[in-house]
Amino acid sequence: MATMECAVTNGASKLSSDDRAVLALRNLLFDICAQNGGGHGGSAIGMAAIGVALYKYAMRYNPSNPDWFDRDRFVLSNGHAAMFLYALNHLTGFEAWSMDEIKGYGSPKLNGFTTLAHAHPEREDPGIEVTTGPLGQGIANAVGFAIASKNLAARYNREGHEVVQSRIYCISGDGCLMEGVALEAISLAGSLKLDNLVLLYDNNQITCDGPLDWINTEDVNTKMRASGWHVLEIPDGSYDVQSVVSALNMAKNIKDRPTFINIRTVIGLGTQIAGSHKAHHGAFDKESVRKSKILAGQDPDTTHEVPSDVLAYFRERKVHGEQLESKWNASMDSYTKNFSDLATDFAKTRAGDYGSQWNEILDNLDSQQFHGQATRDANGTILSKLWEAYGGLVGGGADLINSNKVAYSDSDVFHPSVSYKGRYIRYGIREHAMASISNGIAAYNPGTFLPITATFLIFFLYAAPGVRMGALSQLPTIHIATHDSFAEGQNGPTHQPVEVDSLYRSMPNLTFIRPCDGEEVIGAWLLAMAKKDGPTMLSLGRDPTTTISGTNRYSVANGAYVVKDEKDSKLTLASCGTNLHYAAKAAESLTASGIPTRVISCPSFEHFDRQNEAYKKSIFPRDGTPIVSVEEYVASTWAKYVTASAGMTGYGYSASNASNYDRFGLDEKGIESRVRAYLKSLDGENARSDGWRQI
Amino acid sequence: MATMECAVTNGASKLSSDDRAVLALRNLLFDICAQNGGGHGGSAIGMAAIGVALYKYAMRYNPSNPDWFDRDRFVLSNGHAAMFLYALNHLTGFEAWSMDEIKGYGSPKLNGFTTLAHAHPEREDPGIEVTTGPLGQGIANAVGFAIASKNLAARYNREGHEVVQSRIYCISGDGCLMEGVALEAISLAGSLKLDNLVLLYDNNQITCDGPLDWINTEDVNTKMRASGWHVLEIPDGSYDVQSVVSALNMAKNIKDRPTFINIRTVIGLGTQIAGSHKAHHGAFDKESVRKSKILAGQDPDTTHEVPSDVLAYFRERKVHGEQLESKWNASMDSYTKNFSDLATDFAKTRAGDYGSQWNEILDNLDSQQFHGQATRDANGTILSKLWEAYGGLVGGGADLINSNKVAYSDSDVFHPSVSYKGRYIRYGIREHAMASISNGIAAYNPGTFLPITATFLIFFLYAAPGVRMGALSQLPTIHIATHDSFAEGQNGPTHQPVEVDSLYRSMPNLTFIRPCDGEEVIGAWLLAMAKKDGPTMLSLGRDPTTTISGTNRYSVANGAYVVKDEKDSKLTLASCGTNLHYAAKAAESLTASGIPTRVISCPSFEHFDRQNEAYKKSIFPRDGTPIVSVEEYVASTWAKYVTASAGMTGYGYSASNASNYDRFGLDEKGIESRVRAYLKSLDGENARSDGWRQI
Repeated sequence: MATMECAVTNGASKLSSDDRAVLALRNLLFDICAQNGGGHGGSAIGMAAIGVALYKYAMRYNPSNPDWFDRDRFVLSNGHAAMFLYALNHLTGFEAWSMDEIKGYGSPKLNGFTTLAHAHPEREDPGIEVTTGPLGQGIANAVGFAIASKNLAARYNREGHEVVQSRIYCISGDGCLMEGVALEAISLAGSLKLDNLVLLYDNNQITCDGPLDWINTEDVNTKMRASGWHVLEIPDGSYDVQSVVSALNMAKNIKDRPTFINIRTVIGLGTQIAGSHKAHHGAFDKESVRKSKILAGQDPDTTHEVPSDVLAYFRERKVHGEQLESKWNASMDSYTKNFSDLATDFAKTRAGDYGSQWNEILDNLDSQQFHGQATRDANGTILSKLWEAYGGLVGGGADLINSNKVAYSDSDVFHPSVSYKGRYIRYGIREHAMASISNGIAAYNPGTFLPITATFLIFFLYAAPGVRMGALSQLPTIHIATHDSFAEGQNGPTHQPVEVDSLYRSMPNLTFIRPCDGEEVIGAWLLAMAKKDGPTMLSLGRDPTTTISGTNRYSVANGAYVVKDEKDSKLTLASCGTNLHYAAKAAESLTASGIPTRVISCPSFEHFDRQNEAYKKSIFPRDGTPIVSVEEYVASTWAKYVTASAGMTGYGYSASNASNYDRFGLDEKGIESRVRAYLKSLDGENARSDGWRQI
Repeated sequence: MATMECAVTNGASKLSSDDRAVLALRNLLFDICAQNGGGHGGSAIGMAAIGVALYKYAMRYNPSNPDWFDRDRFVLSNGHAAMFLYALNHLTGFEAWSMDEIKGYGSPKLNGFTTLAHAHPEREDPGIEVTTGPLGQGIANAVGFAIASKNLAARYNREGHEVVQSRIYCISGDGCLMEGVALEAISLAGSLKLDNLVLLYDNNQITCDGPLDWINTEDVNTKMRASGWHVLEIPDGSYDVQSVVSALNMAKNIKDRPTFINIRTVIGLGTQIAGSHKAHHGAFDKESVRKSKILAGQDPDTTHEVPSDVLAYFRERKVHGEQLESKWNASMDSYTKNFSDLATDFAKTRAGDYGSQWNEILDNLDSQQFHGQATRDANGTILSKLWEAYGGLVGGGADLINSNKVAYSDSDVFHPSVSYKGRYIRYGIREHAMASISNGIAAYNPGTFLPITATFLIFFLYAAPGVRMGALSQLPTIHIATHDSFAEGQNGPTHQPVEVDSLYRSMPNLTFIRPCDGEEVIGAWLLAMAKKDGPTMLSLGRDPTTTISGTNRYSVANGAYVVKDEKDSKLTLASCGTNLHYAAKAAESLTASGIPTRVISCPSFEHFDRQNEAYKKSIFPRDGTPIVSVEEYVASTWAKYVTASAGMTGYGYSASNASNYDRFGLDEKGIESRVRAYLKSLDGENARSDGWRQI
């Protein structure tokens, strides 16, 4: 409504219902900002008309059932504007989003007080599709949603029976559009022609530090077009609900391109700091809020009040949503009659019911075939079998797939030039987006998809913020991280991940597993496939190894276990992955020389930490005998368990495996000599009494 | 030379000298690939004509003095094509790059054998400006070089006295152009109008996994134009040296825009796998190599031979480079005569000689003024003083500068709308590029610039690969990481970095410092400013703290030290940052209740690890008394020192400081109760005998 100021001089009654809705939403947002004196209200206020267009007109959703399968998905990539989502969830009648919940926003939450209205949206809450806040992530999540929806539509829709219609709407501010992860995801979305995706750009030309043109002067529309997107522009999106609605309707008819709607807005609209970076955060001046309420015909002395006609205007969506879902249910009945087998399959896919064949495969697989193989090779074979058996697996790699040993058939590629039915996704050289897109795929309809990603372990550092968001959001994904050691083809220190494990072994809710052989890779998959509430990272080697007897797939679940016991042992060597092979050889030599040495395989610290005390003590004795960890990483994560660590204290070197293991004293000989020096320094003393040592 | 095939039928003698140079370079690259049966030769071979254009015609450099100040800088962002750089360094006569060195490429390097010819270029080697390999980094480094050069030119050039002319050339493949870090850097370079930067796109349309259009169909030229770049195209860059030269010359006249030269090439040109992804890595078929040598008039049965005319053609650059440097020296003489003070200042800037005033400031600063302040506030004040005193400081933040408390004056901004003389850089919401660009600034002329970056600690996870490259490359940078605790404004678990410290505390050659108050922030800066061979990260709090007596700026260098001693102590609490304040209060209470408790401040594990055994034992006694660490992070990094840790095992929560410290048992009360339970469980036993515990 470009003429709102005009209309109001003629009395609030002349305002259209859309105008009244926009004002009421804005006024509620003002109250949310004021209730605890802060929060990120400025952009939410600027986006009010966009919110009304989406929630009143464009989006298919059911406030009475936030999890209705065929709903459109909405992602607030500028997650700091969380109150936008909360206010709209309240207005449209999501039961959980009472006004009381909304009043929790920004409260100190003392004395055990909790609220759904977190500072940033968290996906555990009803009506929140994904957790957002760290900028750029939401755009990549939305691309993941779009992939998921496209895939299901391609597999299950039939002419006249469009049982998968859900479209993806994402709002982003200036910030998200500068983040690399978003730029990667945008490029991929254009290349994949995801025409079920709409990105609404809240173009308020203001960032935290100042005006946008201080830091970015690019022609974003042209850039988006060049990236394969259709671009629509709305020069004034502050009031004009119907322009946004028109653009959203237009987007529904755009084929072969995702749509970018560039909407000019004003941050903190209608306040004394409107259009300035000061409007980004904090409460707004009372006078402006009063004026805004008067404009809307509201009592300026009350807060958190929504005029009854406006509430009715929004709450109508509840009935509308119920009708949408009923209609969908009816269409599903007809679908089931016409395509009985397909409907059964579709129901299983929705339920994530892929049977237990994957489990049988892993139980029955003979790991003899993997003896001496690199763990990446064993992993590739296992994944191929699981891929056949478990229809939920979807995903791919970041352009190192031949090195990662992730095989796929050309017909199974998810691509416009092949089909959207495929489950294999070529992510390109976009590690960060790969992880964050996977989060979107996993969150689309939890259980339906189990995404995989693949690149070198070192490049999972590029993906770290995405991996973290998956762990924080309890989204199952399996990250295949190969080339996890010096044995990575002489690439050198730029590619040797001496510290990346420290991050992932410390990341809550991520299961980091470093198996030493094919038998343990099977065990790792047993855990990864069973995990429903977070990601797993498989750390794998590039090069063939020796054969270790005593490994056991089921023991991987214990995190650490004995692979070689010795009677009256005087020493324990603990290791994993490639390093375990050298440690085992060193143990053999030490044992032969009169120092009976046990060997522990430690594929997963997380799982070990879950064991009971008795088990833990059986693995790492507390009797003062020395326990030495061996791993070609900085050893910080081992000190919890062992009395000394043979590891790295600096970066690696570009050389052959043999050269590096020798150079850094981590081959059989090097380990043995380090350990002997350590034992000598202990001189039979209790190894625990003096604390942990780097040896 | 589009007609090379033609020319050869008329005899090799009809080939131009450029053609012969291209062929000889290509043949040398074939031999490098074959010498150890591998390496990344395909793109290097495709880029041969580009290499000749750059090294024979366009670039100003001096093979006799790789470090000549005013040279153009060259960055090979597709670092896997390292042999391209090595071969050209050899051909143009860099002394260190003998043919023997080149023969080391890909060798197993057994028995202590070393070589400069690493799999990826490493900046320790002569003629290598930056270490590259992880894709995208080089483009950001090049943007950093361009900023550095622009800045110096703006400050020191005078009409008729252009003593800073160096231009930046960067080659990138398809891969770098998909990486988020590069996309961020490209966007910033366009916005900053860095017209001294040329990005040459080796457009071979092939990535590791297959054809480019499998993963990227964007219109890269239009995208680059929209990003503020000038775009030139060379449809066939396989042979056509002079077209590339023309484009490079043209780029020299483009004002206000960096230049992007899109050059179509063929990976593995002239071999049986030319143009396919198989050419990315490995040796090439012998028949094609023979043909190529015959084409060049070389003996197909010899290897690593360069025809003498070709060698002379390249080696002429040695004389040319010496002349360039002499000319520059002469112009410096004239400059010195005309602008004596400026010349003195320029000399100091080049030498990184900024005096010792920074040290005096830090020595003399009264930290009383910071009592009770948040460490981010103290840091802001200190930084402002150092910024004045130390002209080498340059950099800024990623759009959270008001929250980071990094102040700057508007006139000191590096921006085309202000001036390029400014030292404050607005990076925009581009954390990853910020870190990687800083590496370029630091590497430009080591010592001249000491870059700073700033964002929240959690968002340094976005920047991690850039921070790592700085640490690996021994480039000094100071990363200001604020909001490092629950006290971060209720943003919630998306913003609370419970595991990020584990990464940075394990990253070799990065000094991670978490000071607890203003006094320690001063100490942190003493270390950060003095460090010449790698980055420092300052982990800082958002909110005011209590006052702790006993902190000491000079003790920060010890890594950990006693802030509160107790006679006959029965317990040690070790902590840092915000958490130390709660730990100190808990210690007071414990001491008062009859458990004499020492308090240790541990700002830097790295510095503590460097201390001698006696000192270490004096801090963390080995007498079996319990030592408990207190920190609101996952405690994996503490187990080296302590007998138990009170930390986090999961993610945080969106609530007020008080609420969260209570919720997670990390306020005074929570710490005390955890510690009491621990002491009870020990029942007076030796706390070391049973190993480390999470309490």
